[in-house]
Amino acid sequence: MAEGEFEFIARRLRPLAAGTPGALRLLDDAALLDPPEGAQLVLTKDAMVAGVHFLADDPAAQIGQKLLRVNLSDLAAMGAEPIGYLLSIARQRETSEAWLEGFCRGLAEDQAEFGIGLLGGDTVSTPGPVTLSLTAIGQVPRGQALLRSTAEEGDDLYVSGTLGDGALGLKVLLGELSLNAAATVFLADRYRRPQPRLALGRALRGLAHAAIDISDGLLADLGHVLEASDLGAEVWADRLPLSLAAREAADAALEAALAGGDDYELLFTVPADRRAKVVRLASELELPLTRIGRLDVMPGLRVLDADGQPIHLDRTGWTHF
Amino acid sequence: MAEGEFEFIARRLRPLAAGTPGALRLLDDAALLDPPEGAQLVLTKDAMVAGVHFLADDPAAQIGQKLLRVNLSDLAAMGAEPIGYLLSIARQRETSEAWLEGFCRGLAEDQAEFGIGLLGGDTVSTPGPVTLSLTAIGQVPRGQALLRSTAEEGDDLYVSGTLGDGALGLKVLLGELSLNAAATVFLADRYRRPQPRLALGRALRGLAHAAIDISDGLLADLGHVLEASDLGAEVWADRLPLSLAAREAADAALEAALAGGDDYELLFTVPADRRAKVVRLASELELPLTRIGRLDVMPGLRVLDADGQPIHLDRTGWTHF
Repeated sequence: MAEGEFEFIARRLRPLAAGTPGALRLLDDAALLDPPEGAQLVLTKDAMVAGVHFLADDPAAQIGQKLLRVNLSDLAAMGAEPIGYLLSIARQRETSEAWLEGFCRGLAEDQAEFGIGLLGGDTVSTPGPVTLSLTAIGQVPRGQALLRSTAEEGDDLYVSGTLGDGALGLKVLLGELSLNAAATVFLADRYRRPQPRLALGRALRGLAHAAIDISDGLLADLGHVLEASDLGAEVWADRLPLSLAAREAADAALEAALAGGDDYELLFTVPADRRAKVVRLASELELPLTRIGRLDVMPGLRVLDADGQPIHLDRTGWTHF
Repeated sequence: MAEGEFEFIARRLRPLAAGTPGALRLLDDAALLDPPEGAQLVLTKDAMVAGVHFLADDPAAQIGQKLLRVNLSDLAAMGAEPIGYLLSIARQRETSEAWLEGFCRGLAEDQAEFGIGLLGGDTVSTPGPVTLSLTAIGQVPRGQALLRSTAEEGDDLYVSGTLGDGALGLKVLLGELSLNAAATVFLADRYRRPQPRLALGRALRGLAHAAIDISDGLLADLGHVLEASDLGAEVWADRLPLSLAAREAADAALEAALAGGDDYELLFTVPADRRAKVVRLASELELPLTRIGRLDVMPGLRVLDADGQPIHLDRTGWTHF
């Protein structure tokens, strides 16, 4: 155990666990959790490395929030409600108190926003980049979890929110793309602080056949659903929902929407006879839910333009055949 | 998501999850767990960094096993039975296939030994040292978890197994200590492959007042119990159980037993009128359970020699006052 770990736990982590009885004030070897009645637990774990999954000069509070939110997004995709989380921090000797304070402040804000608390965790030293790992725990009524493998032929394909913002936000932050100030701020925030679609995930239980969150990019994540469900799909490129900020990026927007990652919107499939319910849900949640394609039994994934012609990604970008 | 991640999950991790229905073949965003009836869940998470928590040239299989076992040791200290685990691996581009194969083979062997399976996890790239994080999930009958905070005045203080082997094993592996071959092999194995005392932890439910596993060293971990329980203690240095191999190290053995870490034995407190039960338990488990001291209300932690005189650790080692 690194020198200073006990102090770090006492000063920074214990306050995050103050509202979580099962965390036992972080005094014990492990946390205790009373499983909810009639529910299944949902468990997910994602790691992030400085310089790989976030930028070393991202504000520390937002790094904490992103770490938590990408895990909550996995819970949302299963239709689960979050309960709590465990955290591992591998920090450098040079990691400043101010950074740690900011990181934990971001987590505290998000705990309040999402109604959860810290259950446990540890902190270690590393000579390498700061490496963070978080395990999120949620619950879902027994048998009602949304899966990737249960999509059906003929299902409509939907996405929430807008696509491509995360990937464009990263480009903007890296100086690879220059946009006006409003678009820059919007996209940077979308990259740094994704919004887990928890209310949508809950509402999709019993409505959607399958769901996934878009972390690797629309096509990659749709590919996971198709593989798990043994289906094919067509995607209508002209229907992809783009934010006004993304539209500023012109051609880069479509590529980001199709292949960029870090959107953390939900992709879900719904039988066609429930379209009215999806429209109503979008209105209730005040969240765009856009029908962008259809599942079929033709193997593979076809991206079509407004004229129904296939378009294709090569190394120079998206081109028509 | 790093290139090769999907293949790694399919080739290496999916087989580890094959016997765990709730892992959903690692196809989904998260794992599903049916909570056991009448039980509380016990959750713990520990990270390990190459060069900090294990030696970069330790056999990969044993690194996987150590990562799992230090977490299972936390479950043992709470009296819990393991159910499953989630895993994060941050690996380098240079991390070889052979290393990954060995790492996962070690986990597979331990899954069989401890009757658990992989529930989920992820793998990412890092430019830094290999960084591993594992979340272990266990169960304990409701209200029966062993805690650190419930020790009582007058309790006897016990430890399982032998102390100091882990710290001496590290010294041997680092070339800081030279012993005969048999001692070298024994101590290196104790450092690399701790034995979580799960059967002991279960048996201590309803018998011990408090328990902790010795990961930071006897005095440090006893200090945690004393702080959480608001008690003091005396420890009888001449009663500390030392392995034959540790005795080869002469003076270094006592220091390792008191202040070394990595033993992963259990330290527990039992009311004096249950001594016969502890003796019987040691016999049943074929595991030494040694009474090494007593809790009292005098603040602090006093280490006494065979004559009852206090001894004291300074920078040059343990000395008498």
